[in-house]
Amino acid sequence: MYTNCWLAYRQLYKSAGGGIPIFCSPKFYKQGRRQEGRIIDSAILEIEKGIMGLFGRKTILVEEEPEDREGICLVLIEDMEAEEYCITAKGGRGTVAAADGRGILYGVFAMLRNLQLAEGLREFEEWDYEEACAPDNPIRMLNHWDNLDGSIERGYSGESFFFKSNEVLTGERVEEYARLAASVGINAAVINNVNVKEAATELITHRYYEKVNRISDIFASYGIDLYLSINYASPIELGSLTTADPCDGKVIQWWKDKAAEIWEHIPLLGGFLVKADSEGRPGPFTYGRTHSDGANMLADALLPYGGRILWRCFVYNCTQDWRDTKTDRANAAYDHFKPLDGSFRDNVILQIKNGPMDFQVREPVSPLFGALSHTNIMLEVQAAQEYTGQQWHVCYLIPWFKEILEFDMCCISDSGRKKPCQNPESRVADLIRGGCRGGKNCGIAAVANTGNDENWTGHDLAAANFYGFGRLSFQTSLTAEQIAKEWIILTFGDNKKVMENLFTILLMSWQTYEKYTSPLGIGWMVNPEHHYGPNVDGYEYDRWGTYHRADSKGIGVDRSPAGTGFCNRYNEPLASMFADAKSCPEEVLLFFHHMPYSHQLKSGKTIIQHIYDTHFEGAQDAARFLELFEEIEPYLDKDAYDRIHARMLHQKEHSVEWRDRINTYFYRMSGIPDEKGRKIYGVMASFIK
Amino acid sequence: MYTNCWLAYRQLYKSAGGGIPIFCSPKFYKQGRRQEGRIIDSAILEIEKGIMGLFGRKTILVEEEPEDREGICLVLIEDMEAEEYCITAKGGRGTVAAADGRGILYGVFAMLRNLQLAEGLREFEEWDYEEACAPDNPIRMLNHWDNLDGSIERGYSGESFFFKSNEVLTGERVEEYARLAASVGINAAVINNVNVKEAATELITHRYYEKVNRISDIFASYGIDLYLSINYASPIELGSLTTADPCDGKVIQWWKDKAAEIWEHIPLLGGFLVKADSEGRPGPFTYGRTHSDGANMLADALLPYGGRILWRCFVYNCTQDWRDTKTDRANAAYDHFKPLDGSFRDNVILQIKNGPMDFQVREPVSPLFGALSHTNIMLEVQAAQEYTGQQWHVCYLIPWFKEILEFDMCCISDSGRKKPCQNPESRVADLIRGGCRGGKNCGIAAVANTGNDENWTGHDLAAANFYGFGRLSFQTSLTAEQIAKEWIILTFGDNKKVMENLFTILLMSWQTYEKYTSPLGIGWMVNPEHHYGPNVDGYEYDRWGTYHRADSKGIGVDRSPAGTGFCNRYNEPLASMFADAKSCPEEVLLFFHHMPYSHQLKSGKTIIQHIYDTHFEGAQDAARFLELFEEIEPYLDKDAYDRIHARMLHQKEHSVEWRDRINTYFYRMSGIPDEKGRKIYGVMASFIK
Repeated sequence: MYTNCWLAYRQLYKSAGGGIPIFCSPKFYKQGRRQEGRIIDSAILEIEKGIMGLFGRKTILVEEEPEDREGICLVLIEDMEAEEYCITAKGGRGTVAAADGRGILYGVFAMLRNLQLAEGLREFEEWDYEEACAPDNPIRMLNHWDNLDGSIERGYSGESFFFKSNEVLTGERVEEYARLAASVGINAAVINNVNVKEAATELITHRYYEKVNRISDIFASYGIDLYLSINYASPIELGSLTTADPCDGKVIQWWKDKAAEIWEHIPLLGGFLVKADSEGRPGPFTYGRTHSDGANMLADALLPYGGRILWRCFVYNCTQDWRDTKTDRANAAYDHFKPLDGSFRDNVILQIKNGPMDFQVREPVSPLFGALSHTNIMLEVQAAQEYTGQQWHVCYLIPWFKEILEFDMCCISDSGRKKPCQNPESRVADLIRGGCRGGKNCGIAAVANTGNDENWTGHDLAAANFYGFGRLSFQTSLTAEQIAKEWIILTFGDNKKVMENLFTILLMSWQTYEKYTSPLGIGWMVNPEHHYGPNVDGYEYDRWGTYHRADSKGIGVDRSPAGTGFCNRYNEPLASMFADAKSCPEEVLLFFHHMPYSHQLKSGKTIIQHIYDTHFEGAQDAARFLELFEEIEPYLDKDAYDRIHARMLHQKEHSVEWRDRINTYFYRMSGIPDEKGRKIYGVMASFIK
Repeated sequence: MYTNCWLAYRQLYKSAGGGIPIFCSPKFYKQGRRQEGRIIDSAILEIEKGIMGLFGRKTILVEEEPEDREGICLVLIEDMEAEEYCITAKGGRGTVAAADGRGILYGVFAMLRNLQLAEGLREFEEWDYEEACAPDNPIRMLNHWDNLDGSIERGYSGESFFFKSNEVLTGERVEEYARLAASVGINAAVINNVNVKEAATELITHRYYEKVNRISDIFASYGIDLYLSINYASPIELGSLTTADPCDGKVIQWWKDKAAEIWEHIPLLGGFLVKADSEGRPGPFTYGRTHSDGANMLADALLPYGGRILWRCFVYNCTQDWRDTKTDRANAAYDHFKPLDGSFRDNVILQIKNGPMDFQVREPVSPLFGALSHTNIMLEVQAAQEYTGQQWHVCYLIPWFKEILEFDMCCISDSGRKKPCQNPESRVADLIRGGCRGGKNCGIAAVANTGNDENWTGHDLAAANFYGFGRLSFQTSLTAEQIAKEWIILTFGDNKKVMENLFTILLMSWQTYEKYTSPLGIGWMVNPEHHYGPNVDGYEYDRWGTYHRADSKGIGVDRSPAGTGFCNRYNEPLASMFADAKSCPEEVLLFFHHMPYSHQLKSGKTIIQHIYDTHFEGAQDAARFLELFEEIEPYLDKDAYDRIHARMLHQKEHSVEWRDRINTYFYRMSGIPDEKGRKIYGVMASFIK
């Protein structure tokens, strides 16, 4: 019915060993820690599955700690950090220590993972290992854009497993999802789309409380806090109010009463995710209020229950006139939220998209990360491959997420600018993990890429993004290479050829997709609405603020001080670096500057030749991926091979369509032929007879 | 609930006269002519409505012919032509003579129309009039693209009044529709979409017979033959067969049996309209058969019942590669059907779209009209404004239909080519009216523009196309000006200012729409799928064979012998005329030739300057339409004024969007500035700082 992804626990060795005792500190089950006990139960169940899968051996739960004997011990050490785990293993005795259930669960998953990654390991008793690890980000979250009718906005893996025909699903698939998510360290999930309409508005009513609470319980046993996206207009749509004004006493009371009712029925709820005043969604602007008015009112209502408000910064004018070259969507999040810095409650977290536009293949990092010194923030990335191949093209996104996390916002500059947070550095990874007051209201979220397809993610290789996002959210210092290696071994086993070829494909894939779709940071050359496939002018004359501004002489959007001034939103020296075409990093050159086709890049190539070359290269890469994949057919499960092969064949063909469409467009536009004389489908000069 | 359009019968004069006797020849009711009798009943009812409306006078049906006295007589004259009518009126005695019910009905509508058109007429008794008229086209048909769920493909006037939620409607609206259609001479109508799927396939089953027959009866009382679009795969989808191969004995028998069953339940059915092997519809090609195999098999099945097969020639490869500059969709209908000339049964009529592409604002006339000497043909035009403003823009199409009808296919050339039909001339109007053997299986069809909107056609002014198509189909010698005048008076009364202003708007409107959307025959610069609004590259890299081939130097599709060779499908001297850019009519220059932007037109302007100028002019025209319309506010019904005003305001704004999009695109592409220095939103040279 569905695959186990990286939790397949392929047998490492047909062991002759007997049962392995498991001892668990009874303190985890003591009174008042019911939740901890349920997480520990999940951990013990996972050890049983893992040991049986990997070694074919049973496990036996024992009531006394097996002094000096072999076995696996789950131990409570109260002065460890929340969610931290510590593993030691030697001579057949393995210990997982933690201060809480989540720490134990993550430790158990880490133990099972590392058993598989340990080269040449044949028996549990041979394992010699030590590891201590605490998560880098307090909140590690998945945002599901699932609708109650079962569809998924920007979903490329089938239908929802949370909802169907306006019913909430609570079956085995939900539990398996929680297990997969917890195994990579996810501790929070929003199950419904940020665009909350119709039945979804009623998730916070008696119509759905019982089943939503059932999901909350399932999640809790894997250490995951359930969140809900809410409709800002709920007081009107659910209540009898005529306003949703956050400063209106009746609205304030309505939300207080509603919060009390919700937490009575869903006591473990983590809070709300809110998309307000964006792309047609209602919000505080409707009433002339600020976003802090709106968020704080909700935050106050949720405070008694420990609830959090995750407030999205994806707010912009989505009815822009394409003739207007001064208004810039890239400025919007910064301009809306920077002035509000310091005005939000501590249980409000601003969720900021990685880039200033919208999850393009390549964008600069949003300047808003460097602009908020007194506000809790989270980073939002997108594992769902909306603009990155929709899980038909391979696009391993972890290298991209790494670049974002490593980008230094230069908050501590030579000019003595104050550091914005408790962390000594100001890379994005630093800024999102400490919270502005050193608290726990911060972290990282990804738009999820899962659905009810048998392999969970449409493309089997897209599961690397689910896995990788979780791993990276837990431990931001992991490299994309390490994560890819882990995922390949856990998913496909440790065949060397499989590792080599899939590793090459994964690590090339994001830049390959960039090569044939989006030169030098230009973006948006996709078909409108569904965002798949090439369409150079698809958004060029539309209302979304998304332009390439190409003409017969040049291409790119002028965001320098002479243009939209977007570059000024960055701290120095970033602002100056982006403002000058000479110092602007070339991968985002056309994002910041309108440049002549004849401009010479550092490679010595002109921009137009770079466009031609990268598109030919990208299509070659995609063809190479297929070859590499076909080489490992003998080592893969036939079903998985066939599934992946069909998509890689499509990618190869579709990359040719991209190549030809983009190259032809710019050849027709510029009139400049390819230096290498390759086939580009222009119609130049056919009238010169 | 809905308007009466041109059948409003506004009072001409508050008469003091008494009742007017109506006498009707009892021969119309004689045994065996039940249908005639019902049409005559409709005619009498119409006289009552008309005389009451126009003069406020009653009518009295009398049994004896009122010798030498005043009154209206409906007289049978058996040696008149079918459908012909003859009107005489003098001294208060009016006579409508005909050989059949349709002739009487058309005569009555003509009488009531001409009473309103007679200047200064105050009383029926003053009327002095004579007219004899027979229709030019045997079949005058409307094709409704209504789906059984109530939607209308390419419908811009609300939902269907024939179908709703998979039920067939038979209410008052259907009867009112039949009356409107009959009043302008329509004698045939297909009520369901040519794309026959799902429930629509079952229209020829017991599920729908009863109600379809009820519509057929309603239609019959207005002299309209009901036709149905059928699914070519019916033997598979309705029967138990595994094939729809037209040469398979079981298929042939299935259709014979099905025809017997259908005519048993819908005895007055006219026949079938068939879209086969086109845009994903099944057809004979599936079985390696020709279109004559397919059409003739059906024609044989329908022959015993006098049924006709209307077979659409809109057959082309709709998965073309945009890189392929030799395959030409324009060639398709000719290349498919020309070789089959003479192979079709007499009760098969090929229905040919006016142009070789698809109902663009401007196209050359399809060469297929000049290529079939031994095949019955009909012309298909589109009253529904799919590519011509979707009934939000005013676009009076009758001048365009006139151009098509008047176009000479040059079938009788100096080289002695044989004339293809019984007519002495070879204008399209001549070719479609005689049939290849002088028969009655020929004529003209329009895709209908009606729906359940209160005013029938979305835009009140779009009703002029419904009216005009009917009038023109009956009498192709009418001018677009005459028809416009008639329609304005019948709809809005005879106010001089109303006449002047609406006449100006209507007569300019098609060329105005052409000006701001489609320069020099290029077409297709619209948003894909819905076909509304500007999008220069909307179809440029798509699979539909619809390209402009613009680059930095020029624009247009090379259909000369050096290009796709489309021009060779025409008879001489047309072929040579189109083949040479010097002799090619300029309104289709870019349809036939890829030309440099710098090419000088006969006006002395370059092509690029022509593009700029026509787009500025077109938007000015649209603004002028609004002014002209606002001037006549005092003379119009408020509801109608408001409805029309809202659409004309939109047209004005939308024409600016068209102007700016198209001009900007070609300015960016060509780099050539407007000679007149008007505002075009290019981004040229912004990097030259």
